[in-house]
Amino acid sequence: MKLLHTADWHIGKQLNGFDLLDEQWHAFETIRQIAKDEKVDGIIIAGDLYDRAIPSVAAVEAFDKMLHILNIEDGLPVYAISGNHDGANRLNFGNRWFEENQLYLRTQISEAFQPVELNDVQIFMLPFFDPIDARIYFDIDEPSDLRSIDSAIALVIDRMKEQFNPSKKQILITHFHVTGEQNADYELTSETTSTVGGLNAVRATHFKDFDYVALGHLHLWQASPDKYVRYSGSPVKFNTKEATNEKGVYIVEITEKGVTSDFRKITPKNDLIVLKGTFDELMSKDFSSKQPKKGEAFFSVKLTDRPLVKNIRQSLSEVYGDVVELHFMGQSTVGTWDEEELSQRTVASDQDILKQFYEDVTAGQEMSLQQINLVEDVLQEVRKAGEEA
Amino acid sequence: MKLLHTADWHIGKQLNGFDLLDEQWHAFETIRQIAKDEKVDGIIIAGDLYDRAIPSVAAVEAFDKMLHILNIEDGLPVYAISGNHDGANRLNFGNRWFEENQLYLRTQISEAFQPVELNDVQIFMLPFFDPIDARIYFDIDEPSDLRSIDSAIALVIDRMKEQFNPSKKQILITHFHVTGEQNADYELTSETTSTVGGLNAVRATHFKDFDYVALGHLHLWQASPDKYVRYSGSPVKFNTKEATNEKGVYIVEITEKGVTSDFRKITPKNDLIVLKGTFDELMSKDFSSKQPKKGEAFFSVKLTDRPLVKNIRQSLSEVYGDVVELHFMGQSTVGTWDEEELSQRTVASDQDILKQFYEDVTAGQEMSLQQINLVEDVLQEVRKAGEEA
Repeated sequence: MKLLHTADWHIGKQLNGFDLLDEQWHAFETIRQIAKDEKVDGIIIAGDLYDRAIPSVAAVEAFDKMLHILNIEDGLPVYAISGNHDGANRLNFGNRWFEENQLYLRTQISEAFQPVELNDVQIFMLPFFDPIDARIYFDIDEPSDLRSIDSAIALVIDRMKEQFNPSKKQILITHFHVTGEQNADYELTSETTSTVGGLNAVRATHFKDFDYVALGHLHLWQASPDKYVRYSGSPVKFNTKEATNEKGVYIVEITEKGVTSDFRKITPKNDLIVLKGTFDELMSKDFSSKQPKKGEAFFSVKLTDRPLVKNIRQSLSEVYGDVVELHFMGQSTVGTWDEEELSQRTVASDQDILKQFYEDVTAGQEMSLQQINLVEDVLQEVRKAGEEA
Repeated sequence: MKLLHTADWHIGKQLNGFDLLDEQWHAFETIRQIAKDEKVDGIIIAGDLYDRAIPSVAAVEAFDKMLHILNIEDGLPVYAISGNHDGANRLNFGNRWFEENQLYLRTQISEAFQPVELNDVQIFMLPFFDPIDARIYFDIDEPSDLRSIDSAIALVIDRMKEQFNPSKKQILITHFHVTGEQNADYELTSETTSTVGGLNAVRATHFKDFDYVALGHLHLWQASPDKYVRYSGSPVKFNTKEATNEKGVYIVEITEKGVTSDFRKITPKNDLIVLKGTFDELMSKDFSSKQPKKGEAFFSVKLTDRPLVKNIRQSLSEVYGDVVELHFMGQSTVGTWDEEELSQRTVASDQDILKQFYEDVTAGQEMSLQQINLVEDVLQEVRKAGEEA
């Protein structure tokens, strides 16, 4: 059988206020076409369906339409889980009706242990969860007994294995930052608002008994730990770090012999282009004529000077259209901009920011494990409260 | 055939911060039992399913469970529409999957013209809408051509009639303030936050071609315009104006001869009791021993004096438990309280408040029709913006 593996749709996401819904619809139509051409037997969406816990009305309407097209019009089973961006409990509404039509939308850790049983395949669906959800599910009173996601995943996988049918292949769909030997360099390539690495990372070795693990969370397919534990990446470029990376989906073929996965590219409708140079260079006809036309791309502009010109952004917009970002690099009369450092900051997790702050105010001391754990607990509470508000 | 008619569940509503979910579950279980005893063929919920456009996680979970019990466990068709409290566009998510299982959840005016076709009955479902929704649907550019709900309803019903099958009975489910000859006294008995009467009222005569109209919006069944155009009322008492009124549902029987409707009572688990008297009277054992025990009722307290006692509310709570309201009537050292007037204010619509304000600042001049229309347009924009935020 063949499955299409995608993830991190982030429906409703904006690029610094620029609406991406058109681009998301374009990516969706490409995915639909790939599914048709490849005659797949189902679609996996490995979390971060929406961009936030309470999505906008436009996002809800779009996602409802997309699911309707895939599941009802095209008659494809859909296997979707919630990611860290989704509001798991709200997203859960109605899912028992959806399953009647093979639209599997799982958002709770408790739903992870009953796989979808196909003829030769068991599909386990493990939505994103916090360690506290695992403590509640496994009835563990003492936080210190189950603090990291890595230790929680170990428990979860053990329980899943009780359901393994040795005559079938096992597929897992989940949404975490998974580290292996191959993807150590991609520690900082996650989408911007979730924590990466450290206490929130899961070791790929936990998944060795699955035939294929369809991951969501990191937006670059290159961040995959190995060829059986794969990130599909997001179908759309969501920030400048992703600008030069190709986007796409995996076609996963499951036969008796084993599992293979092949990448299928999604070409952007309006690409995200990073322009770098002095203001005069970028404003010159010679340079701008080589770029996509106004209205046909999103531009992130990195100026290597800071010209004494009024309305820099407006001037650039008149030439390029949608200037979604404007960064200044190098020195100016006011101070020094280090674009790389700024960019790192936007990708840092809340925890990393707090760690950095602690080091700054204590002249370089590192937080103790106890302090890190405390911070993590508080952040989890805050995230929960945000969702339930 | 038999249908159970209920409305105005307002799942997630609180009484001044006191959670009503337990009481709402009790009412739900009673409704479920009535449906079983009467062997009904379906459940009508005529709007205001939730209490607000973005309900709490607890409310979403509860409503999902309730629908699951009725529609999947008990196998009953459910006919539910959105009311003015519901977020129509968000509530719409997934409804095409629900219909596969005869859970009809309609939230858009565009869905009103395709009735659910049963053997001998057509069920039309008209969710709450604003005149602006009707202008969009009917493609009317000029606001003045379709300003009031009454004129919009006339258009809607005309279009519905095109679908009437003369060999069947016609049932309408909707959610508006409908005025007839019989319910003129109930102009001010609606739930608190929606506008009542005036531009938002619909004349019952529009509905004369339906065999039964199942209404939601006003919380008292006594507010029904006539026996074929009925409010079921809310299943739970939501404010002190409703404290002495019985709550329940209608069993609607549709035969070839015609339609009859019978009221079935819901007895509260924790009743809402209004206590009136001096502080000393209410604190006396003689008086309090005749009331429901602490924890077995919600109390609204109206003190006829203003005693020089610290922690009045706390003292009352120690005797009675859940004191959800505390009003002072009559004179005190500080000023005059007119409990009735205060109570009227809480029931007044936003429009009424603005009208009153206008009269106050203009020494008694009334707003012109043009001004009223302007205010109504602005209020509608505000409500829309609130939902879409």
